[in-house]
Amino acid sequence: MAFPKEERPVAALLVPDILALLDDSPGDVAAETEELHPANLADIAEALPRERLPEFMRALPAARAADVLEYLDEELRSQLLEEMTARQAAELVSQMTPDDRTDALEDLEEERADEILSEISGDARGETERLLAYEPDTAGGLMTTEVVSVPGDASVDAALESVRAAARAGRKEAMYAIYALDGAGRLRGVFSLRELLAAPPGSRVTDIAWQDVVSVAPSADREEVARLTSKYDLVAVPVLDAHGRLLGAVTVDDVIDAIVEEQTEDVQRLGAVEPLEAPYFQASFWSIARKRAGWLVLLFVAELLTATAMARYEATLAGALVLVFFVPLIISSGGNSGSQSATLITRALAVGDVELRDALRVLTREGMQGLALGAFLGVFGFARVLLGGESSSVAMVVGVTLLAVVVTGTLVGATLPLVFTRLGFDPAIASSPFVASFVDVAGILIYFSFAAWLLS
Amino acid sequence: MAFPKEERPVAALLVPDILALLDDSPGDVAAETEELHPANLADIAEALPRERLPEFMRALPAARAADVLEYLDEELRSQLLEEMTARQAAELVSQMTPDDRTDALEDLEEERADEILSEISGDARGETERLLAYEPDTAGGLMTTEVVSVPGDASVDAALESVRAAARAGRKEAMYAIYALDGAGRLRGVFSLRELLAAPPGSRVTDIAWQDVVSVAPSADREEVARLTSKYDLVAVPVLDAHGRLLGAVTVDDVIDAIVEEQTEDVQRLGAVEPLEAPYFQASFWSIARKRAGWLVLLFVAELLTATAMARYEATLAGALVLVFFVPLIISSGGNSGSQSATLITRALAVGDVELRDALRVLTREGMQGLALGAFLGVFGFARVLLGGESSSVAMVVGVTLLAVVVTGTLVGATLPLVFTRLGFDPAIASSPFVASFVDVAGILIYFSFAAWLLS
Repeated sequence: MAFPKEERPVAALLVPDILALLDDSPGDVAAETEELHPANLADIAEALPRERLPEFMRALPAARAADVLEYLDEELRSQLLEEMTARQAAELVSQMTPDDRTDALEDLEEERADEILSEISGDARGETERLLAYEPDTAGGLMTTEVVSVPGDASVDAALESVRAAARAGRKEAMYAIYALDGAGRLRGVFSLRELLAAPPGSRVTDIAWQDVVSVAPSADREEVARLTSKYDLVAVPVLDAHGRLLGAVTVDDVIDAIVEEQTEDVQRLGAVEPLEAPYFQASFWSIARKRAGWLVLLFVAELLTATAMARYEATLAGALVLVFFVPLIISSGGNSGSQSATLITRALAVGDVELRDALRVLTREGMQGLALGAFLGVFGFARVLLGGESSSVAMVVGVTLLAVVVTGTLVGATLPLVFTRLGFDPAIASSPFVASFVDVAGILIYFSFAAWLLS
Repeated sequence: MAFPKEERPVAALLVPDILALLDDSPGDVAAETEELHPANLADIAEALPRERLPEFMRALPAARAADVLEYLDEELRSQLLEEMTARQAAELVSQMTPDDRTDALEDLEEERADEILSEISGDARGETERLLAYEPDTAGGLMTTEVVSVPGDASVDAALESVRAAARAGRKEAMYAIYALDGAGRLRGVFSLRELLAAPPGSRVTDIAWQDVVSVAPSADREEVARLTSKYDLVAVPVLDAHGRLLGAVTVDDVIDAIVEEQTEDVQRLGAVEPLEAPYFQASFWSIARKRAGWLVLLFVAELLTATAMARYEATLAGALVLVFFVPLIISSGGNSGSQSATLITRALAVGDVELRDALRVLTREGMQGLALGAFLGVFGFARVLLGGESSSVAMVVGVTLLAVVVTGTLVGATLPLVFTRLGFDPAIASSPFVASFVDVAGILIYFSFAAWLLS
């Protein structure tokens, strides 16, 4: 998916003004930028000359500076947190939402994160340490602990007062959902602010709360959280411990980020690259080389079989050298149709349009696609060879091989993702290059054995 | 990304119970399923024997049946809307949220949609017709018109009463954001229910509303809406007309669906398939074949150049047949490294990690990746040829060509997405097969001209 880069008019236009303010009256920076969305403030911060950035951050009230940190480029954020004193850093991160605070500290060297943590006071420190204990890409690692809950047996009026008090206490996280808990802190129901406001006077929370609540354990991976968010149109997914007690919630903005990152991993795998786990320019040269070399060597070794296969048919080759001219054409046609099949099936598996039990249906369909497309290309190939002045026998070999190789391609391309899924692996491992290697060897064998048979 | 298919325990367990109820006491179906989330009710509907589905829908109150339609598989939803009378259909769809109602009618034949529309009364019909007039994958086509707005100069107490009244009027759409309008209906600010509740008594809407509002025009494409939602952590993006008047809002659940669909398009393009625009099993056999044939033929025609190139070097080939054994190995190595580069750069462009102005940096980096990886593979290739008993000259040709072909691959693979972006095309067109075809021809030329030079 393409998130086209915007023009950044906001940041670009305002940078000169901000710099002027920093020079002449830094005390006015806060007021001048008061109405800006934090994401735009972060754009400005990213557009400023790097050496003036700390100055800019200091000119903002701590709460606003914390907002900026929530939206700032991660690399830049880590640099700033390293440069300032541990106490300054602690003051800022304590004002971030718990989930963003956790992310910010996770990106730092463990020593530095500990330094900052030790400067955070009491409750907030404990809360942060608990969140840091979870694996980053799980519900526990993504969640915020700032959630609003009320006793399940409360009256609607009391609940409203409770919510109002929480809102006034300056909680930053939006109140997407209100959770109804029992005496032991277990989740009993959920309702929205809208439903609370619409409730008739005198009713109780149990009257308005939905009991069929979608929830996850802290260990749930982010794909599961994303699936539930998408299926149930949620804006927050509650996270419960083994006893059903409410620990926190993963909000939809973090789910969207998770979806985009998961997509990046999948796309990279489909291109035969081990997931970089970092933006392109932030990943180091040698880490990228390593993640590519793995696949390149594996595919190279597999492809060596084509050399061995061709060597076996040396006699046939020598007898009709023209056969050789069409080798790239044949193996690329198999590889291309295989790529298409692998792409379609991998994606369909990923979004749930195809399930393992559909395997037979899929293979039948893909096999027939292979026949249709292979016959089409086979005719082209046959014609090309004849037009090149070769014998109709050679043309026949090329044409029929094309058909066979395209069918092989579609079947292999469809089978590999299904097999990987069955074995519990990510189907995206069945990348285009992977499928092509399989099909190349098969293609060489089909081609030359058919040629040897027909032309002898 | 993988949304692993759940076990569907809810639906599977309840289907026998639901069928029993339908047989014995259909009037109890509504009460028995009252607490279920609509998405789970839709799961049950999809799991029922097809012929009992209309009966099930009739056993539900119209509002619940409308909920089910909002989550039901699209194919099934269209079938149901075709089978019932236009009046019954109109009763159900009028109770859906405007954005889902529009989606449901868009999926029907125009005639049928008109029939149903004519049975919808007054205001709702006009609203639906206006929404249907927008292109489906734009902000206008995705938005709902059920949004809550208050006058910008209202007091916070009046605003709260207004919101409460709207909540009680049974509006289904969650109240993600409250919009502050001026006398002419133009959007002046936005705030959340939390901010409304937290406001000190006696304050006015202007005190709590954010003026730096992110908004889009109805014509904005869904990628732009998704980008803004992700960047600003929004739960709804307001849609304004040319005069700044509020028309509606796109909610985050529809944005998530749009992101997943855009991803599917991109992944399919990267696999050399024209986007299917439908789930795998719903797309017709021949439409898929057509969308694949286009690319296959194009790539086939491009690959024909390899046959022509090899024919030119017939003498060299005849003189050292062993060269031929390594052709697949060489061209696949170039294609694989090219696929890797194309994948990395295309994805980086899509998520904004790389921009056009980074082109020189990218090409330098990719060229160096090519040198590192190509040298690595070249040594492998050299060794393999020697171990096969061939002369060191041939081994040299193979090894050096591997280096050259891998560098060519990385450079071509990185360049194509950048060029496509510059020309305004989707960089994902630079699919693995596309890049491989370019590199194959270059690889053949490099290989045989080097061989001709060294071995003569």
